[in-house]
Amino acid sequence: MLDQPQTFADRLDAIAHKTEAVLDGLLAERPAPGEIARPRRLLDAMRYASLGGGKRFRPFLVVESAALFGVPERHALMAGAALECVHCYSLVHDDLPAMDDDDLRRGRPTAHKAFDEATAILAGDALLTFAFDILSRPETHPDPAVRAELVMLLARAAGIGGMAGGQMLDLAAEGRFGDAKTLGEDEVRMLQAMKTGALLRFACVAGAVLGGADAGRRAALDRYGDAVGQAFQIADDLLDVEGDAAVVGKSTGKDAAAGKATMVSIHGVAGARAKLDRLVKDSEAALAPFGGAGAVLVTAARFVANRKS
Amino acid sequence: MLDQPQTFADRLDAIAHKTEAVLDGLLAERPAPGEIARPRRLLDAMRYASLGGGKRFRPFLVVESAALFGVPERHALMAGAALECVHCYSLVHDDLPAMDDDDLRRGRPTAHKAFDEATAILAGDALLTFAFDILSRPETHPDPAVRAELVMLLARAAGIGGMAGGQMLDLAAEGRFGDAKTLGEDEVRMLQAMKTGALLRFACVAGAVLGGADAGRRAALDRYGDAVGQAFQIADDLLDVEGDAAVVGKSTGKDAAAGKATMVSIHGVAGARAKLDRLVKDSEAALAPFGGAGAVLVTAARFVANRKS
Repeated sequence: MLDQPQTFADRLDAIAHKTEAVLDGLLAERPAPGEIARPRRLLDAMRYASLGGGKRFRPFLVVESAALFGVPERHALMAGAALECVHCYSLVHDDLPAMDDDDLRRGRPTAHKAFDEATAILAGDALLTFAFDILSRPETHPDPAVRAELVMLLARAAGIGGMAGGQMLDLAAEGRFGDAKTLGEDEVRMLQAMKTGALLRFACVAGAVLGGADAGRRAALDRYGDAVGQAFQIADDLLDVEGDAAVVGKSTGKDAAAGKATMVSIHGVAGARAKLDRLVKDSEAALAPFGGAGAVLVTAARFVANRKS
Repeated sequence: MLDQPQTFADRLDAIAHKTEAVLDGLLAERPAPGEIARPRRLLDAMRYASLGGGKRFRPFLVVESAALFGVPERHALMAGAALECVHCYSLVHDDLPAMDDDDLRRGRPTAHKAFDEATAILAGDALLTFAFDILSRPETHPDPAVRAELVMLLARAAGIGGMAGGQMLDLAAEGRFGDAKTLGEDEVRMLQAMKTGALLRFACVAGAVLGGADAGRRAALDRYGDAVGQAFQIADDLLDVEGDAAVVGKSTGKDAAAGKATMVSIHGVAGARAKLDRLVKDSEAALAPFGGAGAVLVTAARFVANRKS
């Protein structure tokens, strides 16, 4: 029965494996045209930070949203690999002693522990740079207008107006540059929309861009990505309160210990769960234009809301 | 006499001012479409690191090589501003305590001294990201194929196979990850081609790409950029030996103190000067296809070879 539908977990897993294979191939020792050499230690650190772990949820969203438009999977996997490079760079830099100072990530030593700080800084820099290399390649999409648009969208999702800016707001709220500040709900929502939401939203919009979607369908995926991004973060905040560190793969209870405002600290566990349920419904509603074809993404939103790690 | 030719110094200065104005406008407080907000402290650090200083020699090379093909200056200035963001990010990260641990840059406190380490790391990350945002904009070039190609070329010049890889080799030679190693001439040349050469070469090739140059003229500018990049580095190494720290704007004598191999340590001052003269001649020869129109770039090569800071 070759055509038996896969379970969601199988599908997520299959795309994770394919993403891994694409990244493994791209991060080969042999330099690409225009490169002079790939120094071994830097390559090892980039591979350490980007291979061998992670659910690859962002690439999954790219592949599944692109599939709604019949985009060849090999294109979507390239865009997903680029996005994963940005995600992995952000983990490496966020873990640095001068930032969040974490020793463990996904149950392994963080990059600056496995290597050293200078190598970790450079590996993060090089992964971020590499993401744009990947997006600019014809293998990502034959139309250069699509490639240039993906570059712009990813840069804005990752830069000062997105992820990097969100990390800055997070450090500021912790009191790193003055008094700590307990953020209100609107401020928490903005911080999270920047720090984690922007890349997840990019993942969904990237599928629409790769597929040459009309404005309506693109906006639908943007709304879906926004809801999933919020759900992802609330689930994360709930795991920090309720999760088992061994299952989550990182230490828990950190937010409360740090006095950090989250949707859980503001609304309580039950209130946050109710918000989560509403976001899952919102994400489902956003997918209405795609009918039955949107079923996988509906399941993905539920998966995000209920994840245990 | 409005048409009186400007001196080279005037021309360099004029392009530096225009580059500054472009960067100032791009790094405004107002977020671009797709951005959520631009947190003040991060924006301040990005502006600190990228405005108010520097000869802007890389943007100059972009503008002047693009001018050979009649590219509107506003396009070349955008590409030059993107390149300058990459250059400035690299200075911020190279100056970090975990890297070269420098307190002064262009006579001012380095970014992590003026702000703090976390802010400096994020400002570098955000400047690097911003470079690709700039390149992807239609204001940089109306043809998305040109924009996508510039993204690829800059990513390869800046990433593991270029600048970031070169910094890695430099740290390794210093003995940061094991025994220090005195590099031979070929190794020094490769390190320098990666660490400083790749961006300078990109600057010249970018002009050809913006101008839709044929393969021959593009290759000519690539050869020119390669020679100028080597000359730039030898001049830098000579300044480290012979320069006055107050004029150079950074401490001198560091290479010899660290036992670092350079073209000066390998060939001596006179030998390095002879190499420099040959590179200036090479760069001049590379510009032959452009005839008299290449005069400014010929002067630029001489300027690089004879610079005092």
